[in-house]
Amino acid sequence: MTHPAARLAETRKADTLHRLATDVDAWVATAAADGTPYLMPLSFLWTANTLLLSTARNNPTSRNLQANPQLHLSIGETRDVVLITGTAELLDSLPDETATAFAEKAGFDPRPANYPFFRVTPTRIQAWREVNEIKARDLMTNGTWLI
Amino acid sequence: MTHPAARLAETRKADTLHRLATDVDAWVATAAADGTPYLMPLSFLWTANTLLLSTARNNPTSRNLQANPQLHLSIGETRDVVLITGTAELLDSLPDETATAFAEKAGFDPRPANYPFFRVTPTRIQAWREVNEIKARDLMTNGTWLI
Repeated sequence: MTHPAARLAETRKADTLHRLATDVDAWVATAAADGTPYLMPLSFLWTANTLLLSTARNNPTSRNLQANPQLHLSIGETRDVVLITGTAELLDSLPDETATAFAEKAGFDPRPANYPFFRVTPTRIQAWREVNEIKARDLMTNGTWLI
Repeated sequence: MTHPAARLAETRKADTLHRLATDVDAWVATAAADGTPYLMPLSFLWTANTLLLSTARNNPTSRNLQANPQLHLSIGETRDVVLITGTAELLDSLPDETATAFAEKAGFDPRPANYPFFRVTPTRIQAWREVNEIKARDLMTNGTWLI
């Protein structure tokens, strides 16, 4: 089996920003107050260097994030990984223009159902495809792009 | 946009068993002792109605599962979801034949590196593609197939 060469860091960042702009869904891992892990696919919008998510107020992901804002989410595939560690903030309001951009990308509008929006601020972003990309997989640490 | 009709429960179970048999990777969500969620793609082998996983003893997934055996994992895509809640048990040993089957499917053999194996017993299995399949998405609850 031949593996492609490891991508340059700049390429990896560009590929990651492309996925953030164009992918629709993320796998979102949160934990309940009692430590029970919870995984759910949610649509996202990448805007202003943050990810917007929305889900019903009483869904486990929503309840978990209100108790513990830490999350770990992935976009992309298991062999083309983009993995983001971040913290989520429940938004009291969102500009209509941003909510509309979310609705258009996600294919559902959270507003009529009164679903809350969460803003996820990434603290760490990693991207890798094959084993040869594991070593330099950090693109962002402590909220700062390394590239 | 037209959506396909919701699958019959029997079809959904058959599709799920097919993915369990043929998919290689899962997104595995665990939580650390302090409640920090952790998400990582890992290869799996479906055998004897359980999933085998393996990762280095000091990797976060491994440490998390030793402290808190609960996990939530997904196989398939965000629009063709198979979501499994389960508990993981660190195995002291595994028959060589099973370890070899794992290595052949995963494309890496945990034995030379002395990676431990975990056996995941599903307690709940859900499968859905579109919104019209959300309602009857439970295929297994409390460790028992409903279909």
